[in-house]
Amino acid sequence: MGTVVSWKQLLLRALDSNSSLKHSSFFQLATVGSSGRPSNRTVVFRGFQGDSDKIQINTDGRTRKIEELKHCPFSEICWYFTDSWEQFRINGRVDVIDGSDPDPMKLQERENAWFASSLKSRLQYLGPNPGLPCLSEQPAQECSPDPSTGPVAAFCLLILDPDQVDYLNLKNNERLTFTSSKNVDGVKCWNSEKINP
Amino acid sequence: MGTVVSWKQLLLRALDSNSSLKHSSFFQLATVGSSGRPSNRTVVFRGFQGDSDKIQINTDGRTRKIEELKHCPFSEICWYFTDSWEQFRINGRVDVIDGSDPDPMKLQERENAWFASSLKSRLQYLGPNPGLPCLSEQPAQECSPDPSTGPVAAFCLLILDPDQVDYLNLKNNERLTFTSSKNVDGVKCWNSEKINP
Repeated sequence: MGTVVSWKQLLLRALDSNSSLKHSSFFQLATVGSSGRPSNRTVVFRGFQGDSDKIQINTDGRTRKIEELKHCPFSEICWYFTDSWEQFRINGRVDVIDGSDPDPMKLQERENAWFASSLKSRLQYLGPNPGLPCLSEQPAQECSPDPSTGPVAAFCLLILDPDQVDYLNLKNNERLTFTSSKNVDGVKCWNSEKINP
Repeated sequence: MGTVVSWKQLLLRALDSNSSLKHSSFFQLATVGSSGRPSNRTVVFRGFQGDSDKIQINTDGRTRKIEELKHCPFSEICWYFTDSWEQFRINGRVDVIDGSDPDPMKLQERENAWFASSLKSRLQYLGPNPGLPCLSEQPAQECSPDPSTGPVAAFCLLILDPDQVDYLNLKNNERLTFTSSKNVDGVKCWNSEKINP
């Protein structure tokens, strides 16, 4: 497998070749609700966690995906690059980090994610409860948050730890599947295989 | 609710205003596997079934989504329009129609879907089993199917019957939720409500 590039290299290359498109950092995140039905929505890629292959997403803790992830912590990302015609399906477990997390390291990561996001992005966490009926009389909240203020209660960091990746290139009709396993030292290893598209 | 347009009208409008983009007919379809984990992949919109609001998708009966839909028939489409910044999340039950369907009407719909698709699209159903290891020695099958030949065994028509639609417009920050119910005559009715984005 030494000659095959990793899915992370393929993904970084896709991000680079599609970087002129604002929506190239958008992907669809599927979860399973408590009813057992699937849910699916567009979210924004917020980078990898450090040098790892874990994927970061910011979200509002008041959205339905949080209760869904608490019920079933698995998710599949479907990320289609409209310019290079590449699709990544990334399946893994999602860690939900909110302000009540007992781990100081995770709270620090959440704070870093907050400060890495734009003031405009931060503003949306101060808005009314997403998904609840809109009270049209309610004046739009246009207060600007203090740039030095840390994460508000609604701010939540999701970290998806991939264990299976399916890569499809529609230009050359190539498809690769990447599967992770733990070696004897508990270190994650990836194996790849060429499969039929 | 009389003044509010239907989600189908909004969707047809979005398709129209994004029609210059080839990928505007692509969306992500989430299902739930037998393990209870979600799956997510890009598929192509093949139109509405007649005058209804049911959504048609062509797929290969040998793909994993078929066994997943037999295990859990619910799905959520996430359809993001990259030009108009609109998102439709369409949740509903999926009917899987393959060549063994006992209903002659459904077999006719499957045949119509087959003939409505391009010869190039039809060719892929003659290829090797999707998702199985690729035998690189295998010569590429370049045989062209007879244009008058009906659907091959692998060809499958999916029909998603929506019962909940979430519409989000990122340009004006408007979000609407559409919920269906049956009236006393068993006819499907839609109600809409403005909700917080």
